[in-house]
Amino acid sequence: VVVRPVSGGPKFPQIEVADARGDLRHSYEDMQAVLRVPWVMFAARSLAVFGQFVPAAWQVSRRPFGTQYLEQCAQELRQLAVLPGDDPVIRAGFDDPDLDGIRAALRALNYGNAKYLLLITAWCEAIQGRPCGGTGPTSDLEKTLPTGPPPGMPELHLVDPRTAPPRVGELLHRVTDMHLHHGPSSDFRVLANWPSFLEVALDDVLTPVVRTAPYEATAHTLLTRARKQVHGLPAPAGLGPDAALTVCTEAEVAAVTGLLFLFQRFILDATIDMVRCAQALDGTAAATSPFSTL
Amino acid sequence: VVVRPVSGGPKFPQIEVADARGDLRHSYEDMQAVLRVPWVMFAARSLAVFGQFVPAAWQVSRRPFGTQYLEQCAQELRQLAVLPGDDPVIRAGFDDPDLDGIRAALRALNYGNAKYLLLITAWCEAIQGRPCGGTGPTSDLEKTLPTGPPPGMPELHLVDPRTAPPRVGELLHRVTDMHLHHGPSSDFRVLANWPSFLEVALDDVLTPVVRTAPYEATAHTLLTRARKQVHGLPAPAGLGPDAALTVCTEAEVAAVTGLLFLFQRFILDATIDMVRCAQALDGTAAATSPFSTL
Repeated sequence: VVVRPVSGGPKFPQIEVADARGDLRHSYEDMQAVLRVPWVMFAARSLAVFGQFVPAAWQVSRRPFGTQYLEQCAQELRQLAVLPGDDPVIRAGFDDPDLDGIRAALRALNYGNAKYLLLITAWCEAIQGRPCGGTGPTSDLEKTLPTGPPPGMPELHLVDPRTAPPRVGELLHRVTDMHLHHGPSSDFRVLANWPSFLEVALDDVLTPVVRTAPYEATAHTLLTRARKQVHGLPAPAGLGPDAALTVCTEAEVAAVTGLLFLFQRFILDATIDMVRCAQALDGTAAATSPFSTL
Repeated sequence: VVVRPVSGGPKFPQIEVADARGDLRHSYEDMQAVLRVPWVMFAARSLAVFGQFVPAAWQVSRRPFGTQYLEQCAQELRQLAVLPGDDPVIRAGFDDPDLDGIRAALRALNYGNAKYLLLITAWCEAIQGRPCGGTGPTSDLEKTLPTGPPPGMPELHLVDPRTAPPRVGELLHRVTDMHLHHGPSSDFRVLANWPSFLEVALDDVLTPVVRTAPYEATAHTLLTRARKQVHGLPAPAGLGPDAALTVCTEAEVAAVTGLLFLFQRFILDATIDMVRCAQALDGTAAATSPFSTL
């Protein structure tokens, strides 16, 4: 008999930033600096369980992922993440004493999600045997951005579903199940700092659209475009099956292949959702251009 | 640098039927007998690498999966797997000395794919913390079908991509890449016994539709329906995270979660593709009713 625990069940295996050491810690920090984002994606924290995959895959990815080309690709994906139809509307009268904090968190998430979508797509393509990167103009590698977050980037705090109050745990369950995910994404663990907003976002902004036909079509468009973009990276990124076998066992490579596939869809969903939440607060332009770095 | 091997690269980790022993061997044989199919899905062979997941997950699934209810669900999925629009047409003049062998293989695959789609969907839902089964009428458990294949079920031979002739290896690469998969499904390894048919099927039947918007919409419809069906199984099926932790390590549970997600999409694609191939040969009715077991 399958028993549903009250609050999230066993924690999905991962190595948290605070617990990472050595090469992995360095990769986590370098990943945030080069991508200019204030968190390490759930995907990387989970993949970190499997051998040296994350340090090795990040090492070959860091150069093309620090370029102006990458920044432009991410900006294009944010625009493609807007669902067709009118802007969503949050119920009249909704307010939160920390609305500025919510706005800042959404800007950070929208800035980072598109970049992580590109990173996971590159890693996913490579592990499935489709080399990506190195066919675009190598001159793009010269156009490297400074590392570290753009001015005004907030810190993010991820709520732990296992220790959250029951109401927050229920909201995070709802998020997980409506998307057919295995757990709440980093994005929703951030929004869980503001449960009233999270509830309104679920009721008014996301439940009406998640997993509808237009949502699926938008996810498909994003995936198709992200694949094309990573194939145009100015240098190769990710590890193919043979390269992965130099840092992982065969079983670990299988695990990594499955998790990359799962998290690719996971990040696609988070990308669409966070753009839509920001759109509900401040309109499409604000949602799709979180920081003026181009 | 990611190097593309000529023919399939390192084999994706799995335990083949011929190499399985003990509990796993028994599960493989019982799975084929209860589902009445002539092969073990790639997903199960890969998942078998991770602890005792496959024997334990099959043990709780075998009763609801041997019922008339399951057979009816599978039949409905085959009909939902038909893409909108006209039947596909194979180029004029195509013939193969073993056209009857191809037809028989497609019937077997179409019979089994819909059942494996239900099995992987049940396992996927359960591992993601959404219990499935046990809410439908338990009287359905009494309506258990005889085990073993329906009369006329052929044996299937899966071609090994690593030892196949280069032409066949290239066709299997093409199949893998057009679907964004990590390797060829059992279905295409079966069709690889008839390379001329496989090539024509790719050119005329599949390339025009795979990953188009209607294809994605059909996959979404199938997934939505399969989820609903497994939630109505007459008894629980699959292992939740806590149950899985009694037979797997934490890392193995993460691996299983990722691979179930990957293979769910994989089987969705195979289900649509094989129905369409049979449709091209013999029309929709033949494609969607491979054996008269209802």
